Amino acid sequence: MGSNSFRLVVYGYEPGRYWQHVDEIREAVRVGQGMGDAGKLKKEPMERAVRTAKVFGAFCRASEIDEVTAVATSAIRSAGNGEELLDRIREESGLAAKVIDEDEEARYGYLAIANSSTIEDGFGIDIGGGSVQAMRLEARRMTQSGSWQLGAVRVSEAFLPDDGEASAKDLKALRKHVKSELEEAEWFVPEDGKGSARAVGIGGTIRNLASAAERRAGLPDTDAQGYLLTRDALEELIEELAGMPPQKRGRVPGIKPDRGDVILGGAVVLGALMDRAGVDELEATDAGLREGVFFERFLEDADPPLFPDVRGSSVMNLAHRYQQDLQHPRHVARLSLEILDGLEAAGLTESSPEDRELLWAAGMLHDIGTAIDYDDHHKHSRYLILNARLPGFTPRELYLIALIARYHRKGEPDASELGKLAHKGDDKRLGVLAGTIRLAEQLERSRDQSVRAVVVSTENGEVRIEPDAPADASVAIWSARRNADLLERALDRAVAVAPGR
Amino acid sequence: MGSNSFRLVVYGYEPGRYWQHVDEIREAVRVGQGMGDAGKLKKEPMERAVRTAKVFGAFCRASEIDEVTAVATSAIRSAGNGEELLDRIREESGLAAKVIDEDEEARYGYLAIANSSTIEDGFGIDIGGGSVQAMRLEARRMTQSGSWQLGAVRVSEAFLPDDGEASAKDLKALRKHVKSELEEAEWFVPEDGKGSARAVGIGGTIRNLASAAERRAGLPDTDAQGYLLTRDALEELIEELAGMPPQKRGRVPGIKPDRGDVILGGAVVLGALMDRAGVDELEATDAGLREGVFFERFLEDADPPLFPDVRGSSVMNLAHRYQQDLQHPRHVARLSLEILDGLEAAGLTESSPEDRELLWAAGMLHDIGTAIDYDDHHKHSRYLILNARLPGFTPRELYLIALIARYHRKGEPDASELGKLAHKGDDKRLGVLAGTIRLAEQLERSRDQSVRAVVVSTENGEVRIEPDAPADASVAIWSARRNADLLERALDRAVAVAPGR
Repeated sequence: MGSNSFRLVVYGYEPGRYWQHVDEIREAVRVGQGMGDAGKLKKEPMERAVRTAKVFGAFCRASEIDEVTAVATSAIRSAGNGEELLDRIREESGLAAKVIDEDEEARYGYLAIANSSTIEDGFGIDIGGGSVQAMRLEARRMTQSGSWQLGAVRVSEAFLPDDGEASAKDLKALRKHVKSELEEAEWFVPEDGKGSARAVGIGGTIRNLASAAERRAGLPDTDAQGYLLTRDALEELIEELAGMPPQKRGRVPGIKPDRGDVILGGAVVLGALMDRAGVDELEATDAGLREGVFFERFLEDADPPLFPDVRGSSVMNLAHRYQQDLQHPRHVARLSLEILDGLEAAGLTESSPEDRELLWAAGMLHDIGTAIDYDDHHKHSRYLILNARLPGFTPRELYLIALIARYHRKGEPDASELGKLAHKGDDKRLGVLAGTIRLAEQLERSRDQSVRAVVVSTENGEVRIEPDAPADASVAIWSARRNADLLERALDRAVAVAPGR
Repeated sequence: MGSNSFRLVVYGYEPGRYWQHVDEIREAVRVGQGMGDAGKLKKEPMERAVRTAKVFGAFCRASEIDEVTAVATSAIRSAGNGEELLDRIREESGLAAKVIDEDEEARYGYLAIANSSTIEDGFGIDIGGGSVQAMRLEARRMTQSGSWQLGAVRVSEAFLPDDGEASAKDLKALRKHVKSELEEAEWFVPEDGKGSARAVGIGGTIRNLASAAERRAGLPDTDAQGYLLTRDALEELIEELAGMPPQKRGRVPGIKPDRGDVILGGAVVLGALMDRAGVDELEATDAGLREGVFFERFLEDADPPLFPDVRGSSVMNLAHRYQQDLQHPRHVARLSLEILDGLEAAGLTESSPEDRELLWAAGMLHDIGTAIDYDDHHKHSRYLILNARLPGFTPRELYLIALIARYHRKGEPDASELGKLAHKGDDKRLGVLAGTIRLAEQLERSRDQSVRAVVVSTENGEVRIEPDAPADASVAIWSARRNADLLERALDRAVAVAPGR
């Protein structure tokens, strides 16, 4: 129950296997509307809050949700009559919400950030409707945090006109306010002698701003997960948004209509926070406070409740969600890496640690599309990877994994499918990685792991791939031969799949 | 174990709930290759058959398949040494295959046809590699059947050059042969005094030909499921295919590469069969003999094993596959139909029985996309509907269902999304149907079926929708109001959602 919106999110999970965001109702309740400095929730916003909570309560009962955790943040926390509202909600909706204090709010934000990005050291930023939380991370632990009444709804009401454009003077006043508020937080500054720190942001304001910047740049829409919002791109957005009335801001691609009137305030606050921390770019994630609350439950055996490896956990999460048995994908991933390492050792390719990681991920996920339909399952795997999210990877990495998985079967990859995310050399990279997985898939065609390993060598300029396999793997070998052409073209040399010695 | 290819298909199912094609290995073994009239399988094709069966056996063991049904058809059936091959396969792969006779083969084809199309009376055609089966259906029962040695591999070897174009003379000779073979089947002719009968075809040859015709016509690719292949379009394809060497025919879009050398033979046979039966068009389905074998198991409580209602079963199959609990989609479907019927009764729209059926299907499936991800689940529902198949619906109906489900949430439908499948009036049709489901979704927002029913009326030119609901459905009503605009535009009048009396 945030200051801007109330959100009911349903997670489904099997402990230790997977979790999934299965349902949601969001309502822009604006419970803090018009609260100003009086410190009291107003009547009409309270009525909206109660009505919405009743829908949420009915939804939970009807959907047979096993456990409900309801939390309230800034507006309700700081209002003199916040508890009165929660009492009414408890009575009329059956939802027993708890006000979380500033430290808890920062901690949940931290859990969301550390579990959905690979940040180890740097800053975390969470912009809500009522308050803003910032944290310092060292070695994936939160070592400092602070909370300020600088949420997007609050500052928009206080500093920006609710009709017409915002003037340079308005923006300046808001910036100055943020700056003075942050003054005391001595830990929230650039570190001496170090370059720009890494920063990760959560919350709807940041997600919308990153999404708007992503679309402005003509990049494929990935809902901003893992997108790097630069300070420059943010400034351009601020200028664009300030130059239009609040009613129009919600129509900027990437900005949700019901956020239009508070997005500019949030953007200015974010700019000032980035300036203060001395960061040139901020990584957006799709997560929020709600994920922090959920992860505390899902990862309750860990202290703090963190995934040991965010990228690996993301991949395994998807793999488990769409597949019962992982023996086959695990083996394809392993054989793929053996082939890639062999090619590298033979001096035929140069692959980065990142390439290995992408190949592993594509190997684990290459068949998930069969959950949609067996026919064209390679294309469905691509669709699922692109749409089901892989926190910890950048949009470019996500697309690469999706394309490598897509081309484990049929067709020929083309870097143009990456659009503006393409880099030089991607045609060859995709050819080698997809060609490798395609060969591994054929060697594991009977799904019984009978091809235990592969040895790669070169002989007279030809690549030799020797599977360590019993005699009856002959069809697998034979069909691997018929599927070596993609790798051959990528390496520009013949690839022979020969029975092992 | 067919004459053209061996195919291992894995079905997953929960009796009475859903079934799904989960995995497959297909190998163009060509076991009947070079068999000619000698009636004996040759050595090399037999070796290929054994090797492939060993992969299949290993696959079944590794994938822990619960039950294996292995059947062999024409080439192995008619070969003097067929049993010798099956003995070797049994010994070396562990797969105990059974030769099915011509009647059984026709029956399995019939079960596939009657369970994946809405045909009640007419002809069924199954073109295999070795033999061809035709059936007569009356009131969904098979009343006649025949089998001929006219399979695509067999006639291609006997009548068409394996190099270079096929001459008019070659085609004529093949046609004449088919005609004379069919002479005795007096039931396989047009019915006196009736127009062209309905015909449905299965098997890879027909599927590939329909797919090629579908792409030629610039239609969206639906893997030919439900596509009507006309006799004229088939003739055009025959001309195109005859004018190129066999090696090139596999590159025609829609034709599988390893079918290129036998597709023309199959096409000519199909043309002759359609001429004989006097049908101008043939509905292709994605099913095959394998589905017939599977349905006999899945529907074992029915005699004959038929879905009582193919379209309804297709929808429920998908609904069950992606959703645990169907109370919410059922209720949205019901409310949608009540609104549509109310609009119709008030003289505001004219909807056909087909519209009702599409709306019901979209209602049952509108939320299945949440299996992929909650965010953008309306788009994922569209993707799943288009890709997971709905036997019994035409490609156009499939697209309409997908779009109605897509627009149950956000955005505005546009008939141009139907491409060449669009008909006049589709913009309004989509607006009314999607606008209706969108309203129903909001009225069932709390998922507890608290809005039990709706009454539609008109008052001063305005549409009034009165939900029968308790007082605490106020948020549902309020949010239905905010989502009435799509329906308002489609009907070109105001829609008021008012609390019931």
